[in-house]
Amino acid sequence: MTDDEKFMKEALREAKKSQSEMEVPIGAVVVYENKIISRGRNKRELSCNALSHAEIVAINQACQKLKRWRLTGCTIYVTLEPCPMCAGAIINSRISKVVYGANDPKAGSCESVIDLFSLPYNHKPQVEKDVLKQECSEILSLFFKNLRKKHDLKFKEQV
Amino acid sequence: MTDDEKFMKEALREAKKSQSEMEVPIGAVVVYENKIISRGRNKRELSCNALSHAEIVAINQACQKLKRWRLTGCTIYVTLEPCPMCAGAIINSRISKVVYGANDPKAGSCESVIDLFSLPYNHKPQVEKDVLKQECSEILSLFFKNLRKKHDLKFKEQV
Repeated sequence: MTDDEKFMKEALREAKKSQSEMEVPIGAVVVYENKIISRGRNKRELSCNALSHAEIVAINQACQKLKRWRLTGCTIYVTLEPCPMCAGAIINSRISKVVYGANDPKAGSCESVIDLFSLPYNHKPQVEKDVLKQECSEILSLFFKNLRKKHDLKFKEQV
Repeated sequence: MTDDEKFMKEALREAKKSQSEMEVPIGAVVVYENKIISRGRNKRELSCNALSHAEIVAINQACQKLKRWRLTGCTIYVTLEPCPMCAGAIINSRISKVVYGANDPKAGSCESVIDLFSLPYNHKPQVEKDVLKQECSEILSLFFKNLRKKHDLKFKEQV
């Protein structure tokens, strides 16, 4: 197992915690000097907060941990391609490298809808994608499949 | 004075507080049902946190206040054109309208570097720009002018 895969497994552990909380399962970790310094998972529904994406939670904690807003030298591992807010937060925090698993055709902003890192902002992180892509995709598709089942069941009960 | 100008004045008050804290002076307010429900100012340096932009601080508080992540029906007033992180947060929180003052040629993501709101994400806020543009620009240019003066003075003292 590569280092990238090892840390993505940890991001997947965070995603699984989201899942058990009935949140869309997305997880992230921030790594500095080969150690995990912060973790985040999607908790938009539980926290009633649009900002509570896995990456934002992890970046917030990483800044607190290192006591600086520049996260130079850090790598963020996230199970799903970052949205514009999170890709923007990666630019603003000067994170050196982004590693993600699955693509997000609806909001992904490192390739799918747009590649924000190719635009002339003042920071361009290195990007590695498709790391444990299948596991990262499957946890999401299974979550939505189960959600649809529940909704169908509810609908049938109501009819 | 229009309502937009009245609320932008309040965003400018926040920017002035940033200035007195030696932060780049940018301020924001979120308005719901014609009342200010949250305020934010840039505090990136003081908080040692890359996420502490005026808009993020204000959106975070607005979600807490309304106890929901969907800020439908809200307008955000901000003195400077939002960066990709903040424009993304506006999309994610479904804020209905964005009103900004000055353009940001370096990171502005509602027009200058790119217009994120024109891309096929799942929400497109209404946008109004150039509200109290001159005041919003002047507070920034004065801040940077004074900063350069201080740096020049320090440099002269060292020589």
